[in-house]
Amino acid sequence: MQATLELGRQVLAQQPFSQYLGAEVTAFSSGHAVLELPLRAELLQQNGFAHGGVLSYLADNALTFAGGSVLGTAVVTSEFKINYLRPAMGDRLRVEAVVLHAGRSQAVVRCEIFALRGEEHLLCAAAQGTITLLAQPAPRG
Amino acid sequence: MQATLELGRQVLAQQPFSQYLGAEVTAFSSGHAVLELPLRAELLQQNGFAHGGVLSYLADNALTFAGGSVLGTAVVTSEFKINYLRPAMGDRLRVEAVVLHAGRSQAVVRCEIFALRGEEHLLCAAAQGTITLLAQPAPRG
Amino acid sequence: MQATLELGRQVLAQQPFSQYLGAEVTAFSSGHAVLELPLRAELLQQNGFAHGGVLSYLADNALTFAGGSVLGTAVVTSEFKINYLRPAMGDRLRVEAVVLHAGRSQAVVRCEIFALRGEEHLLCAAAQGTITLLAQPAPRG
Amino acid sequence: MQATLELGRQVLAQQPFSQYLGAEVTAFSSGHAVLELPLRAELLQQNGFAHGGVLSYLADNALTFAGGSVLGTAVVTSEFKINYLRPAMGDRLRVEAVVLHAGRSQAVVRCEIFALRGEEHLLCAAAQGTITLLAQPAPRG
Repeated sequence: MQATLELGRQVLAQQPFSQYLGAEVTAFSSGHAVLELPLRAELLQQNGFAHGGVLSYLADNALTFAGGSVLGTAVVTSEFKINYLRPAMGDRLRVEAVVLHAGRSQAVVRCEIFALRGEEHLLCAAAQGTITLLAQPAPRG
Repeated sequence: MQATLELGRQVLAQQPFSQYLGAEVTAFSSGHAVLELPLRAELLQQNGFAHGGVLSYLADNALTFAGGSVLGTAVVTSEFKINYLRPAMGDRLRVEAVVLHAGRSQAVVRCEIFALRGEEHLLCAAAQGTITLLAQPAPRG
Repeated sequence: MQATLELGRQVLAQQPFSQYLGAEVTAFSSGHAVLELPLRAELLQQNGFAHGGVLSYLADNALTFAGGSVLGTAVVTSEFKINYLRPAMGDRLRVEAVVLHAGRSQAVVRCEIFALRGEEHLLCAAAQGTITLLAQPAPRG
Repeated sequence: MQATLELGRQVLAQQPFSQYLGAEVTAFSSGHAVLELPLRAELLQQNGFAHGGVLSYLADNALTFAGGSVLGTAVVTSEFKINYLRPAMGDRLRVEAVVLHAGRSQAVVRCEIFALRGEEHLLCAAAQGTITLLAQPAPRG
């Protein structure tokens, strides 16, 4: 598998929830992934900020994409933790994920989420988690 | 503030993202909250399971509700960690959150997420996090 | 492998760091482990409480013991998160860990740490993490 | 407060547990802290690696030092999560912590732990957590 932007977009296009929210892959290469999400009214909480669940979705998905870029596309998020740093307001959110360490079947990945408004981009959340390669069925022959 | 199911439903009704996903509060009392979410095609990932971001939304929101039940409704999630235990499939998801410890301005809360199918309910994810009371504006007068 | 208190004590006796701190196993059965640690001056921080690193050691080790009770003794902690709830003071600390879910090669475990003083025991910290079975060398023959 | 290496060393010298383990502060400035710990037999687990509790101590303490460098020295670790990446072997461990975001009363900090052997240094663990300024007593007058 070669981690290319085209492959990243194909994978995201197969996720109904990512389509429902409107996420986009804007970079995808070995050990690295960037997703973006235009903010709109449906993605907010009661105070006009992006809902924490929107940020945790972005963290989850970006960690998985970055992990998948080195492990293969059949991966799942095993776990992650996220710290919310600031209310997320603006035109769109961007999450950038980088692999810290990858073994044969697991990768540990970090990401940061930024709120973009015009030229400004503010760090809103940071996450760290584990991505696991799904067990492959034994080859038949 | 008295944490009642009616109050819990009012708060959830004010969250556009929770309405967009279709979440419901089914229990809300001091130190305890239960949310449910009927599963439908838009909430899945590419393998037909609920997307991890849907589960992390449920964790985030249930932790916040439980924390808010003891701290007051003006709360935010400061951080949480989630472990995914099984693929989440079924008719609906249920998340149950319980406050472990509450101080004056922060509460530490745990939750478990179950996938419900008919009579069966399977533990799919578990989370733990910190809920923080927003600083109140100084009284004027 | 049968998880017995005797086995738990044997494993702990092989950990130089646990001996250095003075930890004891007081319960060990399938899916469950309890460790205790008498508090003494060397284990404190500058304010007279148990150092956070002492609590994180207890969390790490109790999670691993509980995970090992279902996976086998050749396990490692892959990750955990801990929330500190109160300053830990008293005669001894006790940590109780319970397996939430175990697969073939990983278990997700939670624990709570209590400070004991006379009859009183106060919840001081709570943790959640992942224990992983070390890959076995292929059998030779 | 000015975060200087001398101040960092004074604070560490007041922690009995850090003295018991043999930790040293090797850098301390605003938003940044480095601690080191020579490895010796007492700090290992049963397979000859540094015990996970030693690494979690280093994470806890480095996060707190870095957080304290921007918040003030009266701080505590509220929570953190750690991922173990590799067995930690070598002559000494080094942990480097950097503040991601600091508000008035809390800072979110990340750190990485390296095992050093001769010229080699290998990333062994990574952590992320929250440091909180202790409430100040109200001024009397």
